[in-house]
Amino acid sequence: MKAIVKAQAGPGLEVRDVPRPKCGPGDVLIRVHHAGVCGTDLHIAEWDAWAQGRVRPPVTLGHEFAGEVVEVGEDARGTFEPGQLVTAEGHIICGHCLQCRTGNGHICQRTRIIGVDVNGAFAEYHAMPATNVMRLDGIPTEIGAIMDPMGNAFHTVLTAEIAGSVVLVLGCGPIGCFAVGIAKAAGARAVIAVDVNPKRLALATRMGATRALAPGAAVEQAVMELSEGNGADVVCEMSGAPAALHSAFQLVRFGGRVQLLGIPPGEVPINMATEIIFKGITIYGVIGRKMYETWHQMQRFLKSGTFDPTPVITHRLPLERIDEAIAAIRSGDAGKIILSISS
Amino acid sequence: MKAIVKAQAGPGLEVRDVPRPKCGPGDVLIRVHHAGVCGTDLHIAEWDAWAQGRVRPPVTLGHEFAGEVVEVGEDARGTFEPGQLVTAEGHIICGHCLQCRTGNGHICQRTRIIGVDVNGAFAEYHAMPATNVMRLDGIPTEIGAIMDPMGNAFHTVLTAEIAGSVVLVLGCGPIGCFAVGIAKAAGARAVIAVDVNPKRLALATRMGATRALAPGAAVEQAVMELSEGNGADVVCEMSGAPAALHSAFQLVRFGGRVQLLGIPPGEVPINMATEIIFKGITIYGVIGRKMYETWHQMQRFLKSGTFDPTPVITHRLPLERIDEAIAAIRSGDAGKIILSISS
Amino acid sequence: MKAIVKAQAGPGLEVRDVPRPKCGPGDVLIRVHHAGVCGTDLHIAEWDAWAQGRVRPPVTLGHEFAGEVVEVGEDARGTFEPGQLVTAEGHIICGHCLQCRTGNGHICQRTRIIGVDVNGAFAEYHAMPATNVMRLDGIPTEIGAIMDPMGNAFHTVLTAEIAGSVVLVLGCGPIGCFAVGIAKAAGARAVIAVDVNPKRLALATRMGATRALAPGAAVEQAVMELSEGNGADVVCEMSGAPAALHSAFQLVRFGGRVQLLGIPPGEVPINMATEIIFKGITIYGVIGRKMYETWHQMQRFLKSGTFDPTPVITHRLPLERIDEAIAAIRSGDAGKIILSISS
Amino acid sequence: MKAIVKAQAGPGLEVRDVPRPKCGPGDVLIRVHHAGVCGTDLHIAEWDAWAQGRVRPPVTLGHEFAGEVVEVGEDARGTFEPGQLVTAEGHIICGHCLQCRTGNGHICQRTRIIGVDVNGAFAEYHAMPATNVMRLDGIPTEIGAIMDPMGNAFHTVLTAEIAGSVVLVLGCGPIGCFAVGIAKAAGARAVIAVDVNPKRLALATRMGATRALAPGAAVEQAVMELSEGNGADVVCEMSGAPAALHSAFQLVRFGGRVQLLGIPPGEVPINMATEIIFKGITIYGVIGRKMYETWHQMQRFLKSGTFDPTPVITHRLPLERIDEAIAAIRSGDAGKIILSISS
Repeated sequence: MKAIVKAQAGPGLEVRDVPRPKCGPGDVLIRVHHAGVCGTDLHIAEWDAWAQGRVRPPVTLGHEFAGEVVEVGEDARGTFEPGQLVTAEGHIICGHCLQCRTGNGHICQRTRIIGVDVNGAFAEYHAMPATNVMRLDGIPTEIGAIMDPMGNAFHTVLTAEIAGSVVLVLGCGPIGCFAVGIAKAAGARAVIAVDVNPKRLALATRMGATRALAPGAAVEQAVMELSEGNGADVVCEMSGAPAALHSAFQLVRFGGRVQLLGIPPGEVPINMATEIIFKGITIYGVIGRKMYETWHQMQRFLKSGTFDPTPVITHRLPLERIDEAIAAIRSGDAGKIILSISS
Repeated sequence: MKAIVKAQAGPGLEVRDVPRPKCGPGDVLIRVHHAGVCGTDLHIAEWDAWAQGRVRPPVTLGHEFAGEVVEVGEDARGTFEPGQLVTAEGHIICGHCLQCRTGNGHICQRTRIIGVDVNGAFAEYHAMPATNVMRLDGIPTEIGAIMDPMGNAFHTVLTAEIAGSVVLVLGCGPIGCFAVGIAKAAGARAVIAVDVNPKRLALATRMGATRALAPGAAVEQAVMELSEGNGADVVCEMSGAPAALHSAFQLVRFGGRVQLLGIPPGEVPINMATEIIFKGITIYGVIGRKMYETWHQMQRFLKSGTFDPTPVITHRLPLERIDEAIAAIRSGDAGKIILSISS
Repeated sequence: MKAIVKAQAGPGLEVRDVPRPKCGPGDVLIRVHHAGVCGTDLHIAEWDAWAQGRVRPPVTLGHEFAGEVVEVGEDARGTFEPGQLVTAEGHIICGHCLQCRTGNGHICQRTRIIGVDVNGAFAEYHAMPATNVMRLDGIPTEIGAIMDPMGNAFHTVLTAEIAGSVVLVLGCGPIGCFAVGIAKAAGARAVIAVDVNPKRLALATRMGATRALAPGAAVEQAVMELSEGNGADVVCEMSGAPAALHSAFQLVRFGGRVQLLGIPPGEVPINMATEIIFKGITIYGVIGRKMYETWHQMQRFLKSGTFDPTPVITHRLPLERIDEAIAAIRSGDAGKIILSISS
Repeated sequence: MKAIVKAQAGPGLEVRDVPRPKCGPGDVLIRVHHAGVCGTDLHIAEWDAWAQGRVRPPVTLGHEFAGEVVEVGEDARGTFEPGQLVTAEGHIICGHCLQCRTGNGHICQRTRIIGVDVNGAFAEYHAMPATNVMRLDGIPTEIGAIMDPMGNAFHTVLTAEIAGSVVLVLGCGPIGCFAVGIAKAAGARAVIAVDVNPKRLALATRMGATRALAPGAAVEQAVMELSEGNGADVVCEMSGAPAALHSAFQLVRFGGRVQLLGIPPGEVPINMATEIIFKGITIYGVIGRKMYETWHQMQRFLKSGTFDPTPVITHRLPLERIDEAIAAIRSGDAGKIILSISS
């Protein structure tokens, strides 16, 4: 079958033929209809320091996908059936550690990520442990294919108290844009979206941002106006920019909450006293998706129609044009890019 | 000044002249623009058993109101100014008990309610402790006049987890109708509203109910369909009907939450095992409004426009036509009734 | 191997030879050292209405046990090793329903309970799904054998806020006595234990109860004295007596929490207004153990020595003397009864 | 009356005669029996940069105290009576801002601190707003005099989940030592206390630390041993040392909680990715005491005897020997120092 493969250490990706995966007793074999391309794929394609330290070629890329069940391992019968449309959580966790046993599998230290640590889903077929698979129940596979990154946004937004809150979203890449829409759907009093890139701000506006602004004095002004001078109740830091981090601490209200998802490069000098302690704030580090609270929340928002992620999809390309997809992500102008595979 | 007064023990209300209240050092004197008529006022008018046990005539009625600050006691200067439009929490609490000191003033046992225990706001002027007064900041006084009952609904709905939830509202009186709108605004996956009265169901639909149904098999069917067979995540029992109480326990999902606001008459036989314990549910008794979290939430929902209570207002009458207002409530067909006083 | 079996519909239990269970690929085969006898075993022995409706003979009894791993199925290798001492959660859950996927497996509706729905652990060997097995890591098997009912008590107590609280425990059977000790270990300001049986009150005192009292006026007096007149912050209703249920609602403070574990027979008439709503309380139905938060909490309390359950063990008997164990439970005087099996 | 006064800008303190304060209508006048000396008093005595920026001499120092009510303002009658022994929260808050109105008065931005912004309690008499005063109800004034800093420790510890947790306390000044005792009383599985000063470690041991260690490899070893290799569930950073901050992030378990109370000087470079985000932790900035949840918790722990702060009191001195008290704090060897005033 065709797959997108990091064939050897070094930049670049290859579309090549690889063997179709076997369906183990606990697995579900899925014909991949659509897959989402992510910043992680860019890192692997470019073979940056992180990729060099983590990825062991050859490996098939792709951790965001949806498709049709074509085979069900014997232990998963009764739970899944051929013909069902499904997506899957891309983090395969150990199931036995303290984190896994107490509702925090998203930070299991023995996690293996598909498309990074083991073969992934940029391929015609992908075999996935049944525990990780979720039925789509009417959600299209194009949307199912991006529930993994959407889940990061749901995890970020819905672990804060949103109803009636002024929410500041710093960074309007795809996950930031999802966060804008989720916060609106969950009853935010206002959502202020910030990014340096006007195309991304346009997306944030389409997702329902009350204000979409470039960094600068206008951001503080908007936050203060919409919060009656109190500051943002919740800040979602999704850019990884050190300056944004300081804005988060400056603009969150006393007693507010800062959700950290963006990864700043290296160390950032923080004034713990004035930025955190004296403000009495709470900070939460977001990684992955709650297994599987986040997935159930997503299904519900998508089924009810209160949240529509489609404006964030800016490109639809066949598998073969992966280089084009990677280039679009590199440009900074892309929202989500969907690969059509074997639908 | 003119006021609506329960003049003596026995049925009936009188519109009569009473002295204008003094503004104490900690008070704000308010010229009342609008006031809301409530089921409590019906009980007092009819002089039922509850009213006989609690109310000591003569007393001016009215606990829901909004108006304009006309005088500010010396201790409240700096906090309020003449000319500001305001509403007020009608429960005057002691401020010193365990409940008051730990964020639960709504269940202070030394609470005095205006219009019940002390003179209220169905009058041209009302003096209120400044601690209980809230600025409207652009919210019209007609809406401000019903923030007290709206607050019951906010308290009921927003102390449950609503985003993505299937919410069942049993009883579509004004507070139930508010609850429907609040749950929708806060991102419910679906809101199923139930009442015996088609007029009330029509109001619930206008407030955004996904389904508005008479009690019966169709309710269970709707809950199960919209929750994929799990049952309602949250049930708001706002009718006080014993049958509705059993529906609440039957239709809430395992592990779900039942919010109790409606007051059933007398005792209701409950099967603790099958209705509560084996279902692993949580039940919460709702009274009043959280002081003042609920009020801040309300202001935010009203200012953002995510929640519009106006469809629930079905009657607008001058003070003098209080008997007509009481009759409309008695009929069961009324939403909220607003008295215009001295705006 | 020897086992205690409900051989046919009708009263009585038999000790008989049964085949040793096979260790499936996902299982751990355990040589049972100790097992706990429970009120559920009494119901099955007596063949009461509940047992007749649920149990399908022949079935080996026993859902509380600990022992030594003697064989590990191929899928559980790496997680368990022969020679390890272990206990297990007796509820085998489906793993796929909404409850199982969102941290509420204790209320999975497809739960099968060992010793009730499938063969249990009153036998020399028992095969258990590895997911349900917990290493004892130094906790003796005699204690491991009663972690299942101890877990009910941990679930009941630690889902309330205990540090600094006045805790009222109604019903001092084994689970109530555990609850007393757990509440003390978790920093309760005072624990008031109530039972009609003086032997049980003596046990509660040994577990650390501040006061151990028969039902009556002295209970209210003690609660009010130790809570400065506020009432109990937390009530654990573990008796199932209707009168105790009313005491729970009467003696919990305004805004407090009632944890319901005891199963009242049939229906109990409740005044929702005065017992629940006007008090602004929260009620929680407790069933089973949180999987596996409760188990981790237990291990920590037992390892730290802050909680010692041994006073609750009143009888130690060999497997063959099961009838004596059942009789002791029936008498109402027993704490926990431990069967020694093949240690 | 005698008082300890910062008479003018510059180092040093003076014991001098000042006028006895008036008791306003909302005040309680207290004859001060005991007062606690704090690091803040050292800053003011030394006239460091912080003091120069904040304090406007002349001002009477002292924010931790207890004594006897000698006069009650007319608005506080019924709530307090002459002869009662009381202590008080030293932060006087505005009562009207969003924080004050939603249970977060401890971060009111209009807070005035006694002994810093307005005259304090190192004096024979002190007048305090009745809202801030708490009855001791049998707690000795020597203990009442240190409930303010003890409250910082209660706030830090009890806003985390302590029952069954491994708690790491970094910094064993008086507040750190209190935290050790509180965590033990609230059912921690183990408390590991860390400080560079052996005298402080000896105090921490007396307060119940499972291990009391100097910074270094032994700390990690102890944490890992007592947590089965998971890391600390809760870290209380109470030293303000940048190295301790990094230890906090390193030794907290994945998904754990870091409570920040110690104030690091200037900025500290933080690797947000590896220290916070990838670990999925929650961080909380602690300031002051929750008004008044923390005070009620303290009263309960003190009354029940589960927590005894007396080992932390290392010096008892008369008012006149304030310079000696300041020197002892400067040395780093002191626990709490109590001034005897007019008891």
